[in-house]
Amino acid sequence: MNNSAIDNLSVNAIRVLSADAIQKANSGHPGLPLGAAPMAYELWTKHMNHNPKDPEWKNRDRFILSGGHGSMLLYSLLHLFGYGNLSAKDLSEFRQLNSLTPGHPEYRHTVGVEATTGPLGAGMGMAVGMAIAESHLAAVFNKDGYDVVDHYTYVLGGDGCMMEGISSEAFSLAGTLKLGKLIVFYDSNNISIEGSTDIAFTENVQKRFEAFGFQTIDVADGNDLEAIGKAIEEAKADQTRPSLITVHTQIGYGCPAKQGKASAHGEPLGVENVAALRENLKWPLEESFAVPEEVYANYAQYAAKGADKEEEWNKLFEEYSAKYPDMRKLWDEYYGDNAELDKLFASDEYWARGEKPEATRGISGRVLNEIKKVMPNLIGGSADLAPSNKTNMAGMGDYSAQDRSGCNMHFGVREIAMAAIGNGMMLHGGLRAFVATFFVFSDYVKPMARLSAIMGVPLTFVLSHDSIGVGEDGPTHEPIEQLAMLRSLPNFNVFRPCDAIETEAAWYAAIKSDRTPTALVLSRQNLAPMPGSSRDALKGGYVIDDSAKEVPDVILMASGSEVELAVEAKKLLAGDGIDARVVSMPCMDIFETQSDEYKESVLPKACRKRVAVEALSDFGWGRYVGLDGAYVTMKGFGASGPAKQLFEYFGFTAENVANVAKSL
Amino acid sequence: MNNSAIDNLSVNAIRVLSADAIQKANSGHPGLPLGAAPMAYELWTKHMNHNPKDPEWKNRDRFILSGGHGSMLLYSLLHLFGYGNLSAKDLSEFRQLNSLTPGHPEYRHTVGVEATTGPLGAGMGMAVGMAIAESHLAAVFNKDGYDVVDHYTYVLGGDGCMMEGISSEAFSLAGTLKLGKLIVFYDSNNISIEGSTDIAFTENVQKRFEAFGFQTIDVADGNDLEAIGKAIEEAKADQTRPSLITVHTQIGYGCPAKQGKASAHGEPLGVENVAALRENLKWPLEESFAVPEEVYANYAQYAAKGADKEEEWNKLFEEYSAKYPDMRKLWDEYYGDNAELDKLFASDEYWARGEKPEATRGISGRVLNEIKKVMPNLIGGSADLAPSNKTNMAGMGDYSAQDRSGCNMHFGVREIAMAAIGNGMMLHGGLRAFVATFFVFSDYVKPMARLSAIMGVPLTFVLSHDSIGVGEDGPTHEPIEQLAMLRSLPNFNVFRPCDAIETEAAWYAAIKSDRTPTALVLSRQNLAPMPGSSRDALKGGYVIDDSAKEVPDVILMASGSEVELAVEAKKLLAGDGIDARVVSMPCMDIFETQSDEYKESVLPKACRKRVAVEALSDFGWGRYVGLDGAYVTMKGFGASGPAKQLFEYFGFTAENVANVAKSL
Repeated sequence: MNNSAIDNLSVNAIRVLSADAIQKANSGHPGLPLGAAPMAYELWTKHMNHNPKDPEWKNRDRFILSGGHGSMLLYSLLHLFGYGNLSAKDLSEFRQLNSLTPGHPEYRHTVGVEATTGPLGAGMGMAVGMAIAESHLAAVFNKDGYDVVDHYTYVLGGDGCMMEGISSEAFSLAGTLKLGKLIVFYDSNNISIEGSTDIAFTENVQKRFEAFGFQTIDVADGNDLEAIGKAIEEAKADQTRPSLITVHTQIGYGCPAKQGKASAHGEPLGVENVAALRENLKWPLEESFAVPEEVYANYAQYAAKGADKEEEWNKLFEEYSAKYPDMRKLWDEYYGDNAELDKLFASDEYWARGEKPEATRGISGRVLNEIKKVMPNLIGGSADLAPSNKTNMAGMGDYSAQDRSGCNMHFGVREIAMAAIGNGMMLHGGLRAFVATFFVFSDYVKPMARLSAIMGVPLTFVLSHDSIGVGEDGPTHEPIEQLAMLRSLPNFNVFRPCDAIETEAAWYAAIKSDRTPTALVLSRQNLAPMPGSSRDALKGGYVIDDSAKEVPDVILMASGSEVELAVEAKKLLAGDGIDARVVSMPCMDIFETQSDEYKESVLPKACRKRVAVEALSDFGWGRYVGLDGAYVTMKGFGASGPAKQLFEYFGFTAENVANVAKSL
Repeated sequence: MNNSAIDNLSVNAIRVLSADAIQKANSGHPGLPLGAAPMAYELWTKHMNHNPKDPEWKNRDRFILSGGHGSMLLYSLLHLFGYGNLSAKDLSEFRQLNSLTPGHPEYRHTVGVEATTGPLGAGMGMAVGMAIAESHLAAVFNKDGYDVVDHYTYVLGGDGCMMEGISSEAFSLAGTLKLGKLIVFYDSNNISIEGSTDIAFTENVQKRFEAFGFQTIDVADGNDLEAIGKAIEEAKADQTRPSLITVHTQIGYGCPAKQGKASAHGEPLGVENVAALRENLKWPLEESFAVPEEVYANYAQYAAKGADKEEEWNKLFEEYSAKYPDMRKLWDEYYGDNAELDKLFASDEYWARGEKPEATRGISGRVLNEIKKVMPNLIGGSADLAPSNKTNMAGMGDYSAQDRSGCNMHFGVREIAMAAIGNGMMLHGGLRAFVATFFVFSDYVKPMARLSAIMGVPLTFVLSHDSIGVGEDGPTHEPIEQLAMLRSLPNFNVFRPCDAIETEAAWYAAIKSDRTPTALVLSRQNLAPMPGSSRDALKGGYVIDDSAKEVPDVILMASGSEVELAVEAKKLLAGDGIDARVVSMPCMDIFETQSDEYKESVLPKACRKRVAVEALSDFGWGRYVGLDGAYVTMKGFGASGPAKQLFEYFGFTAENVANVAKSL
């Protein structure tokens, strides 16, 4: 090991700052920052292209800390490099309410954080998405001598990230797609929370990655900067395969009482142990959060080199823009506004009503293809269900290792990784992404949909086969509680359209959304166009078939395939002299954000006789049904049989809806 | 290939029956049954110990069809072997409402189905659970010369099952645990729904399994019964490692127009193609669902051998029971009633109130340990969070490859596989299982919790760190909508207890549950014992602090940590002359099943001023809050900071609850 003195000091700065912050917060995870400080330092200083003065530089190398619990590693780096002027005071407020240094790294919250991480493995999936985005944009934009898109994606995680299934899914796909500019750091310390990884994780990780098609490189001593640097250069050199760099480290390195032990993972070292760490590392300063000037100067030197790199790129990009003005125009469309898209959405052609019954999944497929024609940066696909989800974009090519310009992604049967990859593609910038599967499998997608919502990444989820309408596939494939699951997720819009107009509204809302992800919940079976459907669907809920009276005798509330049922029931009720209103509720989440006045105009409080009709769980409808209403909903799981029979069997008939309404 | 004529005919019987049933239903998946018929036939006839006359034989080999969409493979086998008298008529009712042959195999619905499958990969996880159960029970019960527990677990799946992350998680653990009696069939046909697996899945699956620690065996021709048989014997012979048998097949084999194509996967072959299949396979009978008598006779012969095997075992078990009467008593306790457990639950000692504030996760840990003392067949653990979830059972050993008698499982950071394994352990019989993780990570667990609920497997989920009370770890670790997600799941009880009594009730309900899984949602932080808490918690919701009037001025409804808050708020309201009732709602699901009278006694309709107080999403509370009530709940995601500050910041103070109540 030939680490220079200043390198060692700079590495230890990360360690001491991390230990100080965690100690002051009396909460946090010192194990990872102490063990992984050298690899992060080596990467960020000598190999990664990044400019702390411009964290948004489009061609920067990306870095994701997949082991988000080690956030102090990242915050220390961001501070030492001068990102967003993250101060020592900010570090001292680690894990405090409203500080810039929350427990886990949060995208949009702290400058320089590329992705919110914490749920293990998620960062691995997002990194794969970023690497896909880079390769796709490179294929679209690069010209001979002008590699305007040309960067690496780095991701760092530990044993936990490697154990999570999402990482196997994502890396199996990364290998298939030969993402040569994806470089994975595996902080291998053989320790997990319950003790040695021997108790649950004796697999040969390198061999697994070789099976995936990765280049694998081993660094025996995690403190050996030269060896780490060599590994990084080796990884970068092979652009035909993604690379795994296994770095053998000691968890909590430097703290004599804790290093190599599970207790180093997730609790402060203790005041005495922080002192012992300082002594053991020969750290020159006693004061907490104090860093020698020479360390700052060292980091500043590398920061300046990063600024130079961006300067070079800016020059290249200027030349490129001059030489290829059309490409520059396209670039601005990818990264900014798209006038053609706005024109499409403003056109009457877009808002086609349709004349005959059609499945909303089919309508969705048509709308998607229309949008894609004017939205070149739209990219996405399905977890091996494109023919069923109707998400193929005709003539837009398949993204593959051989053709990275294709816009149709094939994720394989990997729902959770798909969603993480979708997030990663959006986080990269320049692209608008969607992902697709059966609605019932949104269960698998959920952990990553939650991350979309937390990060404010407006990924679109196309979820077809939306109820017992699935029919013969039976209970394992029939969503029941999934609507409640996604509706209850904050900052997440769930649309369940009833016909073409509402499906068009749903896609419009999804694509125009800036900070909120959207799910499109679509029928397998044909649904008739509703005469009353309108762009008011964008309000989330609206009157689709009104009562004669201002305060109706009864309100029937429904979404998707059940709107037609409610409209039929209204007719039956009229025969009995009952004046019903039908409210279509394509997006409960958006309806909730409307003014009280609007909500009252749709659902007047004076009318207490309310029936919710949805061929799924009633959970969540109570806020509109109240204490005096009733439900025509699923009480348990579905069954296997032809869809039409199932609807009758479970009481989804106009007669039954009318009878339930009358019973009020 | 030296397949005998009768073997070929018997294999083709599976194919033709499958094609007929799918054609008649005009729905289903012929690809798998046609391709995998030989391996299934070879296994079920010549290698697997099973007795169609007694599908519940405790020492039978287990078989799970992980690729559940290929259900006709299983139904054909069950019919040909005479399981539960599944008739040709039953097959002809494939995928019809209330038939014995639903779209995907359903546990408890069709005799001989060991697990409900369909969501890909799930069966792989459950198989690992069954193999663990077998090895544990063997360690507990077997005596020299009396291997009363001694069987294999077989599981069959295709490319989809291999792509899903859950299978990597489960098999990585299976390798670590050296589950030598687990044998995995990989029906490798290189086709997925979107086309060739080359587009998304080029990994070397065998090498991945080697990395996990599996023996891997290759069968080049999926129609070669001898080669398949040899592979199975090789797999059985190595009991130090689990085995993967890769069988190269052609999807839809036998149907000239469809074999080897994605179109063979998930739609009927078509009437003409079924005829062509018959001709191509030289099938002697034209009539649908007709099978030559010699084929039935062939299967009957193997069925008889299976009955002999059970007879042998019965004799062995009788001798064992005579020689080891204590072990036999223990066996009956494992597989039947446990009087000591009933005594514990009936004792006043069990229902201890506790005197000082304590986290419900800590209380849960104590209760778990108490139960374990009298419940030897209780087994479980955490996804690497036992110290946090408080699920370690002291002195009960760690289950490992070296010591299979241990009761503490170490699942590693693998939430979804953990839940599937838990299901598998319960499905095996003889054991009561629990699994544990942070509540926020119930997101990962959800797809398998859904299967527990569909199957009626009463697995217990210990989910600690249940709200913003998580504190410093921040939004990624703070559950918000998870309570709604699990409450909305049918046949699934979610308990969020407020103190020791309610935690004891929750564990009681979980352990006594016969067909309904239970989640215990537990606090990280200390909660004070509530003077009014009682065993009425078992009713799901009850009055914990009553109003003076029969119809209170206002009802405060809460669960878990917020019950204390509601009780404090009631005091404040009393100061203003407002008579409040506090309702504790530890389990909304069970409360919903109570009589209307009981519900009215707790929540009288005459009182419309109702406030729900829960430091999570309000989603689902509307049915009790109604149109005139209010919520003190989380409106978005949490934040990173000390828990106490977060509760104040987000309005969870007695003052705010009282003010909201007053505002009504």
